[in-house]
Amino acid sequence: MSKTLADLNICTRDDFIAALGNIFEHSPWIAEQAAIKRPFAGVNQLFAAMKAIVDRAPSELRLALIKAHPDLADKTLRAAGLTAESSAEQNSVGLDRLSDAEYDAFERVNNAYRSKFGFPYIVCVRRHTRDSILRDFERRLPNDALTEEQKSIEEISRIAALRLDALVTADDRLVVHGRLSTHVLDTHGGKPAAGIAVELIELSELGISRVVTRAVTNSDGRTDQPLIGGRPVPIGRYELTFAVGDYFAARQVPMSDPPFLDRIPVRFSVSEPEGHLHVPLLVTPWSYATYRGS
Amino acid sequence: MSKTLADLNICTRDDFIAALGNIFEHSPWIAEQAAIKRPFAGVNQLFAAMKAIVDRAPSELRLALIKAHPDLADKTLRAAGLTAESSAEQNSVGLDRLSDAEYDAFERVNNAYRSKFGFPYIVCVRRHTRDSILRDFERRLPNDALTEEQKSIEEISRIAALRLDALVTADDRLVVHGRLSTHVLDTHGGKPAAGIAVELIELSELGISRVVTRAVTNSDGRTDQPLIGGRPVPIGRYELTFAVGDYFAARQVPMSDPPFLDRIPVRFSVSEPEGHLHVPLLVTPWSYATYRGS
Amino acid sequence: MSKTLADLNICTRDDFIAALGNIFEHSPWIAEQAAIKRPFAGVNQLFAAMKAIVDRAPSELRLALIKAHPDLADKTLRAAGLTAESSAEQNSVGLDRLSDAEYDAFERVNNAYRSKFGFPYIVCVRRHTRDSILRDFERRLPNDALTEEQKSIEEISRIAALRLDALVTADDRLVVHGRLSTHVLDTHGGKPAAGIAVELIELSELGISRVVTRAVTNSDGRTDQPLIGGRPVPIGRYELTFAVGDYFAARQVPMSDPPFLDRIPVRFSVSEPEGHLHVPLLVTPWSYATYRGS
Amino acid sequence: MSKTLADLNICTRDDFIAALGNIFEHSPWIAEQAAIKRPFAGVNQLFAAMKAIVDRAPSELRLALIKAHPDLADKTLRAAGLTAESSAEQNSVGLDRLSDAEYDAFERVNNAYRSKFGFPYIVCVRRHTRDSILRDFERRLPNDALTEEQKSIEEISRIAALRLDALVTADDRLVVHGRLSTHVLDTHGGKPAAGIAVELIELSELGISRVVTRAVTNSDGRTDQPLIGGRPVPIGRYELTFAVGDYFAARQVPMSDPPFLDRIPVRFSVSEPEGHLHVPLLVTPWSYATYRGS
Repeated sequence: MSKTLADLNICTRDDFIAALGNIFEHSPWIAEQAAIKRPFAGVNQLFAAMKAIVDRAPSELRLALIKAHPDLADKTLRAAGLTAESSAEQNSVGLDRLSDAEYDAFERVNNAYRSKFGFPYIVCVRRHTRDSILRDFERRLPNDALTEEQKSIEEISRIAALRLDALVTADDRLVVHGRLSTHVLDTHGGKPAAGIAVELIELSELGISRVVTRAVTNSDGRTDQPLIGGRPVPIGRYELTFAVGDYFAARQVPMSDPPFLDRIPVRFSVSEPEGHLHVPLLVTPWSYATYRGS
Repeated sequence: MSKTLADLNICTRDDFIAALGNIFEHSPWIAEQAAIKRPFAGVNQLFAAMKAIVDRAPSELRLALIKAHPDLADKTLRAAGLTAESSAEQNSVGLDRLSDAEYDAFERVNNAYRSKFGFPYIVCVRRHTRDSILRDFERRLPNDALTEEQKSIEEISRIAALRLDALVTADDRLVVHGRLSTHVLDTHGGKPAAGIAVELIELSELGISRVVTRAVTNSDGRTDQPLIGGRPVPIGRYELTFAVGDYFAARQVPMSDPPFLDRIPVRFSVSEPEGHLHVPLLVTPWSYATYRGS
Repeated sequence: MSKTLADLNICTRDDFIAALGNIFEHSPWIAEQAAIKRPFAGVNQLFAAMKAIVDRAPSELRLALIKAHPDLADKTLRAAGLTAESSAEQNSVGLDRLSDAEYDAFERVNNAYRSKFGFPYIVCVRRHTRDSILRDFERRLPNDALTEEQKSIEEISRIAALRLDALVTADDRLVVHGRLSTHVLDTHGGKPAAGIAVELIELSELGISRVVTRAVTNSDGRTDQPLIGGRPVPIGRYELTFAVGDYFAARQVPMSDPPFLDRIPVRFSVSEPEGHLHVPLLVTPWSYATYRGS
Repeated sequence: MSKTLADLNICTRDDFIAALGNIFEHSPWIAEQAAIKRPFAGVNQLFAAMKAIVDRAPSELRLALIKAHPDLADKTLRAAGLTAESSAEQNSVGLDRLSDAEYDAFERVNNAYRSKFGFPYIVCVRRHTRDSILRDFERRLPNDALTEEQKSIEEISRIAALRLDALVTADDRLVVHGRLSTHVLDTHGGKPAAGIAVELIELSELGISRVVTRAVTNSDGRTDQPLIGGRPVPIGRYELTFAVGDYFAARQVPMSDPPFLDRIPVRFSVSEPEGHLHVPLLVTPWSYATYRGS
């Protein structure tokens, strides 16, 4: 499915539009105008060109672009069929398996927003958790229409950047991915803690908290893969647990019974989906420390 | 209700037995024998005398003492009436408000134990949480009858010590109480963290975790009262949460949005009900540390 | 030598003046005026009365009070004889055993200050180290005469408060003392670190750093006496060392050879002589943490 | 000066011996025998071959190899001329600029050792500090001659490995270098601490402590180059200081006067010259933590 930038630079105008017509939802006119600007030196230049076309488009076209987007978590639409891109994006954040309370909340959000502004509530869901989508809604609803038109275009551009990054390979990359990593240091033994079971949970206020990643630390006290990587780290609240009781018990370290520390939870929030967030643990059977590292 | 040791030393034999007849459940014969040994220099000496009487009693009497105890969390018995002491003790650990799963578990425990040994499963419940009662049962059930007779007498003595401590005032005290305390230090500002909301939860595997204490730190970063004090600190697993997000927000400390740290959970286990366990928190908006202190 | 406030309240005017005549250096007139205001409900009230007399005294008298003070670390004066109080105070901060470089520095300070203002450089030496006396001089020398007259009176009042506290016993106390304490927690073993040799050194830029206190931690991980107590904690820079290598070696804790950590130095400054500064250490053979505690 | 392994594999026997004749001090016979074993797949294989020749050599030859080494820090020899390799190695550890007390100590060591064993005290100085050379001597002197012959050969092999690593380039590398690194995290601001002046000092008991490295942390809180890298990290005691007072002052963080923390010293020992030792600092104006990291 993926295209090289080199191919896109030399293919026919029709092929170019066919390839990039849905980078901006249901809006091939953006690809049409971008086709003229070829060749592009890199994918960043291509994206900048498409974004500039949107930013300079007349208000009616921008509004049409906004209205081309589906409601979030809309059951009817899901049945009728979203674009493949929208569907994948909404599923990625779990919008296809909401609790009843969450469905109700999203429906309220969509209706309240659409009835005030006349267009759907748009957010780049891959940068968010369900909680943060609802929280941002509370902040955006009081805005005026002009502000929300601008905010919608920003979110649409973020969606487009992620779609473009997934579709086009080039020498450069768009900065659309973040990373969440951890590291466990055994300060009782003075060495990296290998073999610690780690679990990352996305916390939810309305729905059910769900496991994002399970991993085991390697000989360097790290996980072989980042806890979240190769995608934005969704804004939201998380709990990372470290099974340190089993680790120290396996090493026959003297402990109380039951062990003072067993599964250590670290709760934190993500605020920068494209950043690198490092959440390490320094631990003995009787103490631990954590911090936002780098 | 409470008696002074001085009064007990000089009152009539009948009054002495009336006062102390239920220190060991339904077994006034222990008080009867202890009455002869008066006067006692302190409550520790009084308790030692009563315990010695039990320890040296013939096997039949010891077994009768064991059998005089009620089953744990027995619905029928609860309806029929426990001694006031047993009722208060069982309620203190929440045995009067168990979840269905917990009731079932306790019923299985009682039946399995009684059918193997012919006497009830006895544990000093005020030193335990529901989880640790069930965990200890798993450990004790494989024992032989002699070992369990001895264990039962030990638990009965612990129950008796707590009853005696509650009833008799003297110059000395029995060591039957522990203490759980905390302290929050704001290492961002270099001072005790005042006004932090703290919540202590008893975690349960089968039932519902329940709040033990809610408090707010004072100007010294401590709580005015210990989180648990004036009683044994029940063996079990706990979660202590610290609302640090509100604290730093109120001080206009720059933070991410949402704040990296908000309500910090510290999960730990208690293993020594009569000890002093100190669980402090050193915290900035970006880091924290905790440890078993003293 | 010490007097009770009760006695001072009822003794003759002459005895009162004899007792308190040198609370303010060579200035019995302050005691004379204070004698009239008797009785005093507490030593704080007595001190406030004496201080008010100074504050409201005519400029000439205040200047005479200032000039009644000796130069700091003046060799000639030392030979000729300081008041017993001045001598003890100057010795307490080590002004009787300065290095040559320090003597030169103090002589420069005295001369520069006296030639600009016409009166000696006065500082309450018991609240300072040699370094901080010299540092404060650098800050005060650029001031105008009026500011320095006021600063001198403030320092003289601090000297007087310390002399009064040492002389008079009453139900209340003047807040003139501070405290420096430590606490060592072994987070490898999960308990207070007993038997750790601790050394407190006052650091000096010009002279020789000198040991203030040597102590060994007790079973609670603390020192039996505060590192500094019963006096102001002198403003200045300190190094506290903890002999943790010996501690862990004695407990046969596995360590590298040579041990990663041996004598841990913690360097910090004191800025509030009347405050309580707590500098604890959390330590394993491979890690440690310290902080300004309370 | 450096040779490629490829060239050494195909050059003449004489050229091979000329190139590698002094890898083992004054002992070209080892290179002579190794020449026959060509070609070598890698430098590790070459070194293993040379080491095997030494290990299997008759006792007289091994003793001659040992005796071919100069005394440590010998003034007369230094005047007469060491091999270029010996001179560079001894200078690297500062043996060319010893204090008088150190010269005396080394002379005592050499004489005591030579008079007991009849051969010089040999140690791979590039893996050591002056202190650790003297400390190891104290441990080795009580040994018997056979043990010391073996120890000398081991040290000679370490010297040879370092010489070979410096001389020969190949696809593989000998593991003869270690690394010492640091990282400063500002847990007050929740970010890497950039611009912190860092100083690494080698501590000495007999001589003068000397600065090994001065650096400033970069935007990632690390130093651009490791504090020690591209060579063994000498066994010994070090002090790393971090100028955190200046850092926080430059950011206008509120602090006491003088600042509670200014130049933070971290004292630690190195025990594994070929390992990677990471000594990070987590710091606020009021607290810090350090640990042996990885």
